[in-house]
Amino acid sequence: MQGQNQQQAYDRGITIFSPDGRLYQVEYAREAVKRGTASIGVRTSDGVVLAVDKRIRSPLMERSSVEKIHKADDHIGIASAGHVADARQLIDFARRQAQVNQLRYGEPVGVETLTKEITDYIQQYTQVGGARPFGVALIIGGIVNGEPRLFETDPSGTPYEWKALAVGADRGDIRDYLEEHYDEGMDLDEGVDLALAALASVNDDELSPEGIGVATVDVETETFGQLTDEEKEAHLAEADLLDTGEDADDEAEDEDATEE
Amino acid sequence: MQGQNQQQAYDRGITIFSPDGRLYQVEYAREAVKRGTASIGVRTSDGVVLAVDKRIRSPLMERSSVEKIHKADDHIGIASAGHVADARQLIDFARRQAQVNQLRYGEPVGVETLTKEITDYIQQYTQVGGARPFGVALIIGGIVNGEPRLFETDPSGTPYEWKALAVGADRGDIRDYLEEHYDEGMDLDEGVDLALAALASVNDDELSPEGIGVATVDVETETFGQLTDEEKEAHLAEADLLDTGEDADDEAEDEDATEE
Amino acid sequence: MQGQNQQQAYDRGITIFSPDGRLYQVEYAREAVKRGTASIGVRTSDGVVLAVDKRIRSPLMERSSVEKIHKADDHIGIASAGHVADARQLIDFARRQAQVNQLRYGEPVGVETLTKEITDYIQQYTQVGGARPFGVALIIGGIVNGEPRLFETDPSGTPYEWKALAVGADRGDIRDYLEEHYDEGMDLDEGVDLALAALASVNDDELSPEGIGVATVDVETETFGQLTDEEKEAHLAEADLLDTGEDADDEAEDEDATEE
Amino acid sequence: MQGQNQQQAYDRGITIFSPDGRLYQVEYAREAVKRGTASIGVRTSDGVVLAVDKRIRSPLMERSSVEKIHKADDHIGIASAGHVADARQLIDFARRQAQVNQLRYGEPVGVETLTKEITDYIQQYTQVGGARPFGVALIIGGIVNGEPRLFETDPSGTPYEWKALAVGADRGDIRDYLEEHYDEGMDLDEGVDLALAALASVNDDELSPEGIGVATVDVETETFGQLTDEEKEAHLAEADLLDTGEDADDEAEDEDATEE
Amino acid sequence: MQGQNQQQAYDRGITIFSPDGRLYQVEYAREAVKRGTASIGVRTSDGVVLAVDKRIRSPLMERSSVEKIHKADDHIGIASAGHVADARQLIDFARRQAQVNQLRYGEPVGVETLTKEITDYIQQYTQVGGARPFGVALIIGGIVNGEPRLFETDPSGTPYEWKALAVGADRGDIRDYLEEHYDEGMDLDEGVDLALAALASVNDDELSPEGIGVATVDVETETFGQLTDEEKEAHLAEADLLDTGEDADDEAEDEDATEE
Amino acid sequence: MQGQNQQQAYDRGITIFSPDGRLYQVEYAREAVKRGTASIGVRTSDGVVLAVDKRIRSPLMERSSVEKIHKADDHIGIASAGHVADARQLIDFARRQAQVNQLRYGEPVGVETLTKEITDYIQQYTQVGGARPFGVALIIGGIVNGEPRLFETDPSGTPYEWKALAVGADRGDIRDYLEEHYDEGMDLDEGVDLALAALASVNDDELSPEGIGVATVDVETETFGQLTDEEKEAHLAEADLLDTGEDADDEAEDEDATEE
Amino acid sequence: MQGQNQQQAYDRGITIFSPDGRLYQVEYAREAVKRGTASIGVRTSDGVVLAVDKRIRSPLMERSSVEKIHKADDHIGIASAGHVADARQLIDFARRQAQVNQLRYGEPVGVETLTKEITDYIQQYTQVGGARPFGVALIIGGIVNGEPRLFETDPSGTPYEWKALAVGADRGDIRDYLEEHYDEGMDLDEGVDLALAALASVNDDELSPEGIGVATVDVETETFGQLTDEEKEAHLAEADLLDTGEDADDEAEDEDATEE
Repeated sequence: MQGQNQQQAYDRGITIFSPDGRLYQVEYAREAVKRGTASIGVRTSDGVVLAVDKRIRSPLMERSSVEKIHKADDHIGIASAGHVADARQLIDFARRQAQVNQLRYGEPVGVETLTKEITDYIQQYTQVGGARPFGVALIIGGIVNGEPRLFETDPSGTPYEWKALAVGADRGDIRDYLEEHYDEGMDLDEGVDLALAALASVNDDELSPEGIGVATVDVETETFGQLTDEEKEAHLAEADLLDTGEDADDEAEDEDATEE
Repeated sequence: MQGQNQQQAYDRGITIFSPDGRLYQVEYAREAVKRGTASIGVRTSDGVVLAVDKRIRSPLMERSSVEKIHKADDHIGIASAGHVADARQLIDFARRQAQVNQLRYGEPVGVETLTKEITDYIQQYTQVGGARPFGVALIIGGIVNGEPRLFETDPSGTPYEWKALAVGADRGDIRDYLEEHYDEGMDLDEGVDLALAALASVNDDELSPEGIGVATVDVETETFGQLTDEEKEAHLAEADLLDTGEDADDEAEDEDATEE
Repeated sequence: MQGQNQQQAYDRGITIFSPDGRLYQVEYAREAVKRGTASIGVRTSDGVVLAVDKRIRSPLMERSSVEKIHKADDHIGIASAGHVADARQLIDFARRQAQVNQLRYGEPVGVETLTKEITDYIQQYTQVGGARPFGVALIIGGIVNGEPRLFETDPSGTPYEWKALAVGADRGDIRDYLEEHYDEGMDLDEGVDLALAALASVNDDELSPEGIGVATVDVETETFGQLTDEEKEAHLAEADLLDTGEDADDEAEDEDATEE
Repeated sequence: MQGQNQQQAYDRGITIFSPDGRLYQVEYAREAVKRGTASIGVRTSDGVVLAVDKRIRSPLMERSSVEKIHKADDHIGIASAGHVADARQLIDFARRQAQVNQLRYGEPVGVETLTKEITDYIQQYTQVGGARPFGVALIIGGIVNGEPRLFETDPSGTPYEWKALAVGADRGDIRDYLEEHYDEGMDLDEGVDLALAALASVNDDELSPEGIGVATVDVETETFGQLTDEEKEAHLAEADLLDTGEDADDEAEDEDATEE
Repeated sequence: MQGQNQQQAYDRGITIFSPDGRLYQVEYAREAVKRGTASIGVRTSDGVVLAVDKRIRSPLMERSSVEKIHKADDHIGIASAGHVADARQLIDFARRQAQVNQLRYGEPVGVETLTKEITDYIQQYTQVGGARPFGVALIIGGIVNGEPRLFETDPSGTPYEWKALAVGADRGDIRDYLEEHYDEGMDLDEGVDLALAALASVNDDELSPEGIGVATVDVETETFGQLTDEEKEAHLAEADLLDTGEDADDEAEDEDATEE
Repeated sequence: MQGQNQQQAYDRGITIFSPDGRLYQVEYAREAVKRGTASIGVRTSDGVVLAVDKRIRSPLMERSSVEKIHKADDHIGIASAGHVADARQLIDFARRQAQVNQLRYGEPVGVETLTKEITDYIQQYTQVGGARPFGVALIIGGIVNGEPRLFETDPSGTPYEWKALAVGADRGDIRDYLEEHYDEGMDLDEGVDLALAALASVNDDELSPEGIGVATVDVETETFGQLTDEEKEAHLAEADLLDTGEDADDEAEDEDATEE
Repeated sequence: MQGQNQQQAYDRGITIFSPDGRLYQVEYAREAVKRGTASIGVRTSDGVVLAVDKRIRSPLMERSSVEKIHKADDHIGIASAGHVADARQLIDFARRQAQVNQLRYGEPVGVETLTKEITDYIQQYTQVGGARPFGVALIIGGIVNGEPRLFETDPSGTPYEWKALAVGADRGDIRDYLEEHYDEGMDLDEGVDLALAALASVNDDELSPEGIGVATVDVETETFGQLTDEEKEAHLAEADLLDTGEDADDEAEDEDATEE
């Protein structure tokens, strides 16, 4: 109990270190990320893939309003997991930064550059008082000069580059799946298949086209695009992951794993 | 009791995460929404419907002063539930944003655009210190370019799009009713009927024309309008929902479910 | 005791929600209103009536300095109950807004417009930190374009419109009296009689002309005016409510129900 | 003990309401007023009288430096009780306001106008955070256009008008004396006698000319003036209130009732 | 113990009243004054005298660096007791105010005027949050237009005028001595003798010239000047107060009574 | 337990001293540094060496995104350990300062000058409220005018100059190794070998080229450069430190020693 | 235990007085000074001497980076003890002030003037909230117009002038040594010897040239200069204080007495 009391002493303040050098508010913000449904990113030889779980709470809710995949610029997409309203703030920030870069330098912003502008912004909310950290993780994928790049931002403001990754609920299990099946030589289609299989691996191996979102940026066009329901269904059917149950089945039963 | 104490530690501060990644102040603001009487939105093929419960505390109070349906712009209406004074702030903000949009771009603001400007504004009150979240939920319905749209904003600042929804008291029961009876092919009149039936379902299946508010935006005129008492009475009578008791009966008995 | 402790956790902070969605500081400010003597408003077909209890603590105090009825503009009067110094701030705000409106639009401010400018101002003190809510309720009555209007503002910043209402001490009993005896067809004189009778109903059915304040705004002149002691006495005598005791009798015995 | 704990919860914060609608800091500031020696005001048909107890802690202290009567303008005097340094702030504010009024409108400031400018200033310190209330009460007396006026300001920022009043230590006993002996028809000399007798009533019926301060503003000259020791002695002798003991006797024995 | 706990509740906050109307931080600042060695002021018919105890902690410390007597202007001296660094702030403020006055009005600042500018400055630190009170008392003595004046400022910001006074350690005992021996008819030399005798009365009736500081402002020259060691020794010898022990003896033994 | 409680009292506030003169938040920030993997600096006669442990959490993470060696200017490199997002802030600050210096003085910034600009910046975060200290230590190495310099900054804002040093996890053991084997006469290649051997000494004497980062600034070119995997492998092989296991082995098993 | 609890109540807040008039944060900052190694100042007839203990934690650390003697201006040196990063802030402040003085008045800043500008700056951090006091003491020595002056600043912001003094660890023992052996007639060389002997007296009477720093400002050149290792060794050898052990011996064993 002593330990518990001691912890309480440090996790109430926003921006202070605990005796063992941890920032509890940042760690709790990571818990907020885990409360959101999973998002996945996969980098392939000819593009990047973003795939997200779009479970909804009611058949009356429009799935399209569960915004988990965002276009940051023509050549960069962002998938988010965690506190939705916080994600929107970061997406808005990312879009403004991308425009500023285009205007200032006359060329598209680099994926790494944009990621680091976002993480520096996030870091401010973990060091200066008067605000809480952002409760959201982003997967930022895009192509500049033919090179696919895939980054993660977490609530501490640290940028990581990945070949493939997951954020949000079931992150650990999905990562295990990705580590086992990832192959750097994959093409974009195989990347989509891997992302969907990884997402299905924590959903009883069944997904419905409407319950997921998939976007890609390919090296040829360097353009962000989302897959249609038909394209998603084709991928799922081919991989034998298509949910054959009724619509309501892919609604969230576990409120904890729904975007809030 | 330990659990309870632990919770207390996190819900006093406005903008900090709890160890499990929740923002208690935002969740308590949702409770403030539930303390308000219900508001309902229904999207039909030829327009959107807003319907609200306008229970009052005394026959001497003017029902018209219980403002739960607001005109945000010619083509957009907003229904609110929860803390009335907070709702007024958001409605004022929405109206200003709609005017700014008209002035800047020379065309009516989009329903989704306006919703997201509102939710971004709400989010600020959940992250930056020195203020509490807004204790109100809004249903924002309107028509732009012939397309009916229906959105919800909640105290976290998340925008959701719905086919039909309820906010405020009895939200869960009304949503069950809507899920069971909603049909995307409904016309506007059927949409009004559904909204009133859903509201009546948690009011002993009886409503008085004065005790409710109903507004619509139809695709043809793209113009917000409120139903007269006669129109409301006709709808209720037709659906056999007309309250035949005396006036005082539809006054709030449960103080908790009255707008404050 | 657990419940009590839990409550204490939420009512110390100015602007935060309790777990059940309440704002305790606003509710306590309502208690401050109840500590003030009663004020009454009655709307009639040809004008509005404001009547206030002006009990004083000592015969040496000038009753005229117990300001509970205020002229906001030529055509609008305001009666207050609760924390006197707070009321003065709101009255000053109301007067400035009325002047600004006259200057800007060249016409008298609407009663509803003025009320909502006041309630929006009050709301700010309930959401943004660094200040407490206003501990006062106002009854705002006036005539614009021949239409009598009667509004209430409460410490949450919510505007209500009434046919007749009471704020301050004994609010509940006076409202019961008003609900029983109010008739929309009353003329202004009958409105004064009703207000006085309602006030007398919680004062052993006896009032002295000096111990009360009465003001009216009639539809014909659209001009605020206060009744003289003779006029008040005539009304009281006619209604058999005239206090025949000595002066000191109408001094406050219960300190709690005196304006502070 | 529960009650005591509960009280502690609300009286530490400057500007928040207790559950019963009280502002403890304002009430404690009133206690600071009671810790100061008494000040008295009397309004007569031909002028106002201010009388103060100027007890000192040592015969080496200059009584003239115990400032309890202040000239606010040629025609207005102010007597204070409570925290001396706070009183000086309000007196400075009053003098500036009187000068501003003279400059702006070309005529002397009204007594009521000045009082309300002071109370509005005081109120700010009870509502907005970051400062404590003023621990002082003022008696503001003066003549404008031949009319004597006498006001009180208290720590809540409420203005009261009185025929005669006392603030500070023994306020209750002195008020009882004033209520019993006050007569509106008194002339200025009788007013001085009444004020001195009231002050003596709580000082074993003995006062020394040096131990008190007396000032008047008469309707004829509309000019503030202080009585000389000879004038004070004449009044005291005539009323058989003259302290015949030695100097040291009128020094404060009860530290609590000395200005600090 | 209850009483003690209750006290703790009020003395942690800087600017709030306790239930009995006291400002604990101001009272604790007075304790800081008592922790400093004594300073004495004496007003005579032809000038003012300031005398201070300059005990030091080590023979290696330069006594001249124990600044307890300061020249505020040509005609005004200030002796301090308490927190040395705080005293320096007030002395700097006093010097600036004296210069401003000279520049603005072309004449030397009055002693009373200067005192009140200082006390008003001190008061601000007791009412507005974000800073602590000044832990220092000043004796301000000077001559304007041939009139000797002697004032005290305390941590509450109250100005007092005295014939003779002491601040700092042993204030009570020295005041008793001064009250017994003070005579308004004294000349400046007798004033110096009285101040030294009073200081010696709490130092075993022995003082060394180096261990004390003495300054005067005489009515003829209206000029501040400090006594040389020889002049001080002559005074002490004449009064049989000369410390015949060795140097080290007048070093502080009681750390609590040394300036810090 | 008393001691523990007492400690808690001081380590919650950011910028206050404990009774024994320590700043706990700064000490806890040092713990945050220890949670990061080790970084090493070695100064040789013809250049400086920076070597870092780049352990990663998953084979899917790009090692290059674990930024622990940064180029501050052409002639200065910085290795960091601890909170990654904080490190980025300081690196950005360092780069801006280096550019400003170049622009202002037309010559490269000195290593010592740059270090002290960084430590002064760090110190501000330990003294002024509203922010927490930086949870990162930097090793700043470079060459100006042919002179190799090697500095450390710690969370307190103190600059140290070293011949060789380690920061982060296992700092003590690595320092012991360095103290035993350091020789001022080493050339740059020997410096690289020493750094790698020291790092291997706490890693079972095995390192993989990909799991480490090595950079040098040599006196001849005065230019920062990073070693390629081949160069690193050659050094490791020569020193018999090459990890012959599989890739996954050099992933962090102890989460505590991974950059976060 | 009661006493301990009571103390805790006052030492957490930065700028408030305890009931006995103490400022605990300032006293704790003095403890931070004691945690630093000793610094010594000696004033002689022909110059001032500064001598410091430069113990280091590792033979790999550059002693020159342990900055305890600083040049503030050509004619003024400063030795520090305590929190190193804080000392740097004050040194920077001192250098800026010296330059400003030179520019503004065209002559070197006085030693006393500079000292008081520093102490006034320090005092601000003890009275105004939002920052902690400086945890450092300075010895400021210099020559202006041929006059040697030696000052101390402490964390309260009080300036003291000394003939000889020590700050930091073992302050008391060194002061005893200085008091016993100091002679005002010493020349500069003898002053250096005294400073070294005093420092050696708390170091087993042995010092190494590298482990100490010595600086002087002589009256002839009025120029600050540091002694070379050879000069230091000569002094130590002559006084039989030369440490004949190995290098590592003069490293800090007691971490508490090392600059941090």
